[in-house]
Amino acid sequence: MKEQNQQSTITEIVERDYKEKLDKRKKEISYYQEKTEELGLKSTKRFTEYHPDPSKSMLTGVTFAHRDLESVVESMANRQPWAVISGLNPSGPLHFGHKQIFEEVLWMQKQGAEVFIPVTNDESYLVGKVKSLSESRKTAYEKVIPSIIAMGFSPEKTHIFVNSDYPDLYNLAIDISKHLTLNKVYKVFGFGENEEGENPGTIFYRGGVQLAQILLPQYEEFGGKKPSIVPVGIDQYPYILLARDAALKKGFVPPAATFVKFEEGLDGKGKMSASRPNSAIFLTDDLENVKRKIKSAYTGGSPSATFQKEHGGVPEICPIYQLRAYHFTNNNELKEQCSTGNILCGECKKQAVEEVSEYITEHQTKLSIAKTKINDYLLKKPIKSILTE
Amino acid sequence: MKEQNQQSTITEIVERDYKEKLDKRKKEISYYQEKTEELGLKSTKRFTEYHPDPSKSMLTGVTFAHRDLESVVESMANRQPWAVISGLNPSGPLHFGHKQIFEEVLWMQKQGAEVFIPVTNDESYLVGKVKSLSESRKTAYEKVIPSIIAMGFSPEKTHIFVNSDYPDLYNLAIDISKHLTLNKVYKVFGFGENEEGENPGTIFYRGGVQLAQILLPQYEEFGGKKPSIVPVGIDQYPYILLARDAALKKGFVPPAATFVKFEEGLDGKGKMSASRPNSAIFLTDDLENVKRKIKSAYTGGSPSATFQKEHGGVPEICPIYQLRAYHFTNNNELKEQCSTGNILCGECKKQAVEEVSEYITEHQTKLSIAKTKINDYLLKKPIKSILTE
Repeated sequence: MKEQNQQSTITEIVERDYKEKLDKRKKEISYYQEKTEELGLKSTKRFTEYHPDPSKSMLTGVTFAHRDLESVVESMANRQPWAVISGLNPSGPLHFGHKQIFEEVLWMQKQGAEVFIPVTNDESYLVGKVKSLSESRKTAYEKVIPSIIAMGFSPEKTHIFVNSDYPDLYNLAIDISKHLTLNKVYKVFGFGENEEGENPGTIFYRGGVQLAQILLPQYEEFGGKKPSIVPVGIDQYPYILLARDAALKKGFVPPAATFVKFEEGLDGKGKMSASRPNSAIFLTDDLENVKRKIKSAYTGGSPSATFQKEHGGVPEICPIYQLRAYHFTNNNELKEQCSTGNILCGECKKQAVEEVSEYITEHQTKLSIAKTKINDYLLKKPIKSILTE
Repeated sequence: MKEQNQQSTITEIVERDYKEKLDKRKKEISYYQEKTEELGLKSTKRFTEYHPDPSKSMLTGVTFAHRDLESVVESMANRQPWAVISGLNPSGPLHFGHKQIFEEVLWMQKQGAEVFIPVTNDESYLVGKVKSLSESRKTAYEKVIPSIIAMGFSPEKTHIFVNSDYPDLYNLAIDISKHLTLNKVYKVFGFGENEEGENPGTIFYRGGVQLAQILLPQYEEFGGKKPSIVPVGIDQYPYILLARDAALKKGFVPPAATFVKFEEGLDGKGKMSASRPNSAIFLTDDLENVKRKIKSAYTGGSPSATFQKEHGGVPEICPIYQLRAYHFTNNNELKEQCSTGNILCGECKKQAVEEVSEYITEHQTKLSIAKTKINDYLLKKPIKSILTE
């Protein structure tokens, strides 16, 4: 009798767990669908079908929507100049969430784009992720930029800059910020409710520097106005809108955007983020840590192997599935295997450890050479056009 | 009967005019007294009596109050390093209001101060005084800086910079702005009531750039922490308070300030300002204009010569008196002459035209040489200490 009770309790737990995971999947799918509709974005599906060699991010549906992608597609097709801008916050080393975005950027470079990578150490400092400009600057040169270079970007078509070492950018930011009102910036970013945590630099960053970064490729020094695109998370759509407004005021082409889904953190508690170190695999992690993080990761599987064999896992919400599908293996095959219960989490994690370890090992061997090449990638061109127009 | 009526009307007008001028004087005297008390400032009187060779601005009472002047006086006496920071907005050429301040700064240089002059073309643009950064930048180099140089500053101890050509300053501004909250900046500057006219750049300027300018001499590149002083109008006290706060957070010496009275505009409608061209005599005006502006100026005298001979004028509120007393003649003597009715406005204006014309003619002959020397005065030193600390 007692054993039967225990058994029924376990069954209840297993079923509740499964139901929760299905609910989570449903919620996530509708989140992106609703956002796409709400913001009036278009699906990237048509582009993915049409392009002879779409990016992994598009094939896996990580890149799920866009605004004005047509404007760069035309340049892509006609081999006209276009640019990608993809910045990041150097508060820690790159993780697989960054890798996913930068592989998309790399793909764009192979389609002909000039790549601009602002390493926003000012933002890291202003929002309180590091204690000083110098701390995030150090991380930028020692950890972030070498990893980006090691991913295979071309030095001729890649322009990396650390904001505080490229202060000409701030002149552009001053120039652009004049076209905005404070009220507009507040409204777009929802400031005002909690001004306590904000400082004058943050407002200037959001309503000036970030926009200058996005519009940078269109200044005279870089060949003038041209189509451009920014791959971003859906939460960063406000920047894009402000940047499109600012572009019109400067006589530039409004920048396009592709929207990418967040990569799920290994802890199952939200997107992969450096602020929760166990949620992310860093490209600089050692293999011991990789193994530990993957082994202890949350998954879309069931606590009961029997149940999972019968019902399958829920790959769409599984960080291990995402890790493998977005970065390594054939995603459709793995999804099939997981959904049908043909692969269980233990085996899947084992394969994940192997794939990630192999990638990371190779990546890390490239870092010392990458460090010697930083100078070839740095943007140093002075920006004088707005001071003499 | 009719003639008598007219006569009494004229008498009434003359008396009302005199009463208005006395009231204006009373109001002005109490304005500065009340401000001094309200803000807890000290009078500069003791310093003026103690110093063997006080500045003209102190002798005439134009410099009327100070905050923490003691901190630089000690350096002055012991021949230790100290600095003066005096910026200006290059939306037009220098006028006599600027001349007054820069002569005070020049006096400080002769007392041993290192002089820093930020030419804030970013502010001119952000607050809407010019249409572009390039417009105010052009005015800075073509009109403002040559006039400053022609006033006799030493190239060794004077550091002039146009903000948009010295963008390293913005790194300091980012650094400092993090120590402030938006709420504090709003409170100090009374923003929030009319945010419509504000933009993200203005907030950053007030809560970052302006403070960076004031603290600049204390960064490692310029010899590290030291006493410093800023001569300002009383309305700019908020900057000083914010700068003193920021200094403490950076481990610097809180900057001192001297407060100067506004020079009365020739139109009698407020302080001399480039935004009311007839209120100001520009150092680049031609002699025809000088004559015209002075001849048509508002004065502290009476519409009736008879009345003025009997009662005297009201020099304290007279822009012509200020122009002559602050810049040229012996102020006590002129005040005496005017108050006792021994000099009338026509004669006084005639002498003013002569004095101003002589000064301006000499100043203008120096401008073409000054233009060739700009490079000797420009601050170009990169600021790297905060990026590598």
